[in-house]
Amino acid sequence: MSAERTGVQTRITDVAALAGVSIGTASKALNGTGQLRDSTRQRVKDAAEKLGFVGDARARALSSGRTYTVGMITTDSFGRFTIPVLLGAEDALSAGQMAVLLCDTRDDHVREAHYLRSLAARGVDGVIVTGRSADARLPIDVSMPVVYAFTPSTDEADVSITLDDAAGSALVARHVRSLGRQRIAVVTGPERHRSAVRRADGASSVLGSHLVAPPLFGEWSERWGRQAVDVLARQAPDVDAIVCGSDQIARGVCDRLRESGRSVPGDVAVTGFDDWDVMALASRPPLTTVDLRLEELGRVAGQALLALIDGGMAASASVAPTLVIRESTVGA
Amino acid sequence: MSAERTGVQTRITDVAALAGVSIGTASKALNGTGQLRDSTRQRVKDAAEKLGFVGDARARALSSGRTYTVGMITTDSFGRFTIPVLLGAEDALSAGQMAVLLCDTRDDHVREAHYLRSLAARGVDGVIVTGRSADARLPIDVSMPVVYAFTPSTDEADVSITLDDAAGSALVARHVRSLGRQRIAVVTGPERHRSAVRRADGASSVLGSHLVAPPLFGEWSERWGRQAVDVLARQAPDVDAIVCGSDQIARGVCDRLRESGRSVPGDVAVTGFDDWDVMALASRPPLTTVDLRLEELGRVAGQALLALIDGGMAASASVAPTLVIRESTVGA
Repeated sequence: MSAERTGVQTRITDVAALAGVSIGTASKALNGTGQLRDSTRQRVKDAAEKLGFVGDARARALSSGRTYTVGMITTDSFGRFTIPVLLGAEDALSAGQMAVLLCDTRDDHVREAHYLRSLAARGVDGVIVTGRSADARLPIDVSMPVVYAFTPSTDEADVSITLDDAAGSALVARHVRSLGRQRIAVVTGPERHRSAVRRADGASSVLGSHLVAPPLFGEWSERWGRQAVDVLARQAPDVDAIVCGSDQIARGVCDRLRESGRSVPGDVAVTGFDDWDVMALASRPPLTTVDLRLEELGRVAGQALLALIDGGMAASASVAPTLVIRESTVGA
Repeated sequence: MSAERTGVQTRITDVAALAGVSIGTASKALNGTGQLRDSTRQRVKDAAEKLGFVGDARARALSSGRTYTVGMITTDSFGRFTIPVLLGAEDALSAGQMAVLLCDTRDDHVREAHYLRSLAARGVDGVIVTGRSADARLPIDVSMPVVYAFTPSTDEADVSITLDDAAGSALVARHVRSLGRQRIAVVTGPERHRSAVRRADGASSVLGSHLVAPPLFGEWSERWGRQAVDVLARQAPDVDAIVCGSDQIARGVCDRLRESGRSVPGDVAVTGFDDWDVMALASRPPLTTVDLRLEELGRVAGQALLALIDGGMAASASVAPTLVIRESTVGA
């Protein structure tokens, strides 16, 4: 671990010595100030990088008026959807030399207000707001750049980076149609969730007359997947494909089909949504599903925040998911 | 959201006015300096709290030599085990007015070294190190207080807060024995993992002669649970309870027992380990299992770090898990 120790202890005098310049010149080169030749500035930067010199972030913060720190607020206790968003955002932000202050509000307004005051007092340069739901939330009220990731703001003037649920669902529907399936059902989550409705709409718009019944709304669970197979056995016994709104639902669908003597994908092709490994890979058979690309979503949000902090512009955007093909539609 | 806005904009002049004191007196009262009556100090603090005044953390940091910021390093990309540890630690630290800087090393030594330099440059007051494995790791080399959480340090002089795997496993073994089961098998993860071995040892020490075979080591998966049932069908067809090293293994065990015509818990009682809701509750039947109390573990680690930062002492400790009883051992 001696390399790290060297990094921690490196002083600007070491950088100046290695670059063969005075301490004043080294300081100007690293701070981007003063009149220096480009070659000199580069030599100092190379020396700093070689020695792992990072300067005193606190001093830099005071001189620049920036803290090179952003807050990240989640209502989700870092759940399954938030984690990849955080990772992607952290990726983009640390490439911009920003450190991330973690704030978990646990869906508590008082806690959120406390964190916003604390972030303001610490002078963070900006905030990313995320959560577990794709349903819009009220904006936070702070006087610094803010980007919403996954969970959009209700204010359309805000910058919100969201997932294109309908496009993902259209992808799996087209895949199932391309396999020649004719009698297709859609089984998804609760109708009060924007993502459930958009996933149903995205699939329905592609399936048209091949839809055997209106989309079945229920809950985000394996149990609902099993129940939905029983419902379809009465409503549409000749169904040959089931497009599901989540991997959990799809796993339940596969289990009940197998237990009732129908093969997947031989008799019925099944698709999921999320590409959540513990469900999609543990399912029998493993699930064809939709990769949400949440890490990419977080990266786009981080880049948007960096642009705003630097005084530039950023626009709301949606990230398109991708199709992952496995045995639940194409056999082993 | 106007309450938050008020909080953000509150100045010390507002606090002084509400408390009916001079700005200098308000400042001394809040910083704990100067000669003031206790009642005056309390009046200022009450006013500050009422107005949501938090002061300028940067100014406070410079005057105290502390940044009221700690780094949290994980190798786990905030996986299933790390998340609750982080939540618990954040709980303890924010109660101590500390903000948490998030650093995800993604199991990359270069990235870890970069983060350690960045944390040192930012002058954090301490670091919590965590990860996804209960196997010990090499210590980090920094000159500030460090506490290891879940993943211990190989250096016994370091402060490591760990999970008592053997105690958790002994709990489920005693529960299964208390139900009168006589022919009991242990199925767990890979033998190279400390947690797999300790869980097997903890159960074996309680089960003694009721163990039908040496513990079966495999992998942390549902598939291994299903395979293990087939192995036991040959080795010990009269097994009446299976103590599993994880909820995933236990879920696979339940599935294969049901598919081979044996009832759970009627013919065979089954226990898991982790209390991971998507496995333990989705299992048919839901699993009797062990709650790891990782949030408590994180809280203990956060408190230990606060003690070290304040110049006090902290000792390594292990957190005892608890038993959660569901239908896989006691029927519906």
